Amino acid sequence: MNNPPVIILIQPQLSWNIGASARSMLNFGLQELRLVTPKQDWQNKKAVGTAAGAEQILKNTRVYKTTANAIADLQTVYATSARSRDMVKPVITPREAAVELNESIMHEQRVGIVFGREKCGLKNDDLSLVEKVIKIPLNPNFSSMNLAHSVSIISYEWYQTVHEIPTSHTTMSNRMPATKSEIFNFFARLEKDLDNSGFLKIPGKREIMIRNIRNLFLRANLTEQEIRTLHGVVTSLRDYPKNAVSN
Amino acid sequence: MNNPPVIILIQPQLSWNIGASARSMLNFGLQELRLVTPKQDWQNKKAVGTAAGAEQILKNTRVYKTTANAIADLQTVYATSARSRDMVKPVITPREAAVELNESIMHEQRVGIVFGREKCGLKNDDLSLVEKVIKIPLNPNFSSMNLAHSVSIISYEWYQTVHEIPTSHTTMSNRMPATKSEIFNFFARLEKDLDNSGFLKIPGKREIMIRNIRNLFLRANLTEQEIRTLHGVVTSLRDYPKNAVSN
Repeated sequence: MNNPPVIILIQPQLSWNIGASARSMLNFGLQELRLVTPKQDWQNKKAVGTAAGAEQILKNTRVYKTTANAIADLQTVYATSARSRDMVKPVITPREAAVELNESIMHEQRVGIVFGREKCGLKNDDLSLVEKVIKIPLNPNFSSMNLAHSVSIISYEWYQTVHEIPTSHTTMSNRMPATKSEIFNFFARLEKDLDNSGFLKIPGKREIMIRNIRNLFLRANLTEQEIRTLHGVVTSLRDYPKNAVSN
Repeated sequence: MNNPPVIILIQPQLSWNIGASARSMLNFGLQELRLVTPKQDWQNKKAVGTAAGAEQILKNTRVYKTTANAIADLQTVYATSARSRDMVKPVITPREAAVELNESIMHEQRVGIVFGREKCGLKNDDLSLVEKVIKIPLNPNFSSMNLAHSVSIISYEWYQTVHEIPTSHTTMSNRMPATKSEIFNFFARLEKDLDNSGFLKIPGKREIMIRNIRNLFLRANLTEQEIRTLHGVVTSLRDYPKNAVSN
């Protein structure tokens, strides 16, 4: 079997949630945990205690400084969120996510699922980096879930999907999406050029304009080849008048 | 709606598991918790802490001396178990259980789901009291689940069944896709600019490059607003040096 999804926890504050997440990951065959700026002493007794035998996952857990770094080598990344937001981003259920991610995995992609902070969930900046939002359908009057429980339910759905659905998968003509770092590189250069050209200079609008631009490109699920094409398009447009002279 | 399933925990040893179970019950609309001979001081700070707002469930929790007493008033009762046993008893998945229990509830039955001890699960005596066994499909190499996580997954499946998970809404906040003519207008202006900048001049490649660029933007399912943004991006890049001078 190919690699199951990577679980990424953004700024987890409680070490026992990290341990409990590791335990439920292993319950459902997930192995790789990544943390973005957790509390410094996260690998403590409480984490080991709640891991309850899944310490191997904690030992192999890598820590990152930013969400972008933590997902840079992955191709398809979804994020869980309890809230509806204004952002233009597809919202799907855990079950749908499991089917889609399994499909990506069968096409040899590396995929990941991002979970937000215990208190406040994900920020728009985190969400702007991922393709889709997974929303666990919940009692609208009591929708604050424990972090490890969310990990457990998402992992559970993944395991059910993998073990129910045999090998049927829709063809995507061997399409291999670009890695996140390739996409982020493109965003960085585009935004730099747009800063220089003055497009992003409208006061108070820069953040939202960047987010909107990122979102529309993320929805396209770009391949590496398409990223190269887009680099070429931006460079060519930027250098326009110089070339235009020769026309 | 009729009464959702009652959750019955047999001899829970850790008060924070009781609190966490209450929390995940309420997350999925379950209200009634019963305990069979828990540790005496179960209703403590740890339980309240992990309940995290679901204290009402803890306050209403009733304690029983035997499993038989705890389920005496119920009509259909299933029990969760990680192990296969010799007992002649149907074994079903959480999803199947949710459908069946919901059906019973719609026939105005009172139903319950029994969970075993943290360390050793259910005894044959407990199992002999229930109709069916619910087995959560798990990694066979690491099948020891946290009690509250099991409660969470069973509750989750119940909620999904009752609410017949709405098909994924690409919510997108009143997202209205652009008309095709708006998209074609954008293609036309982009391709004209790219012709002028020289990008499409590679002999024999023009057709396929245009097709690739169109395809990636079409996949993004752009809104009218996003088309306007893209027009702005292209114009700004095209006029880059002129603006850049002012930097």
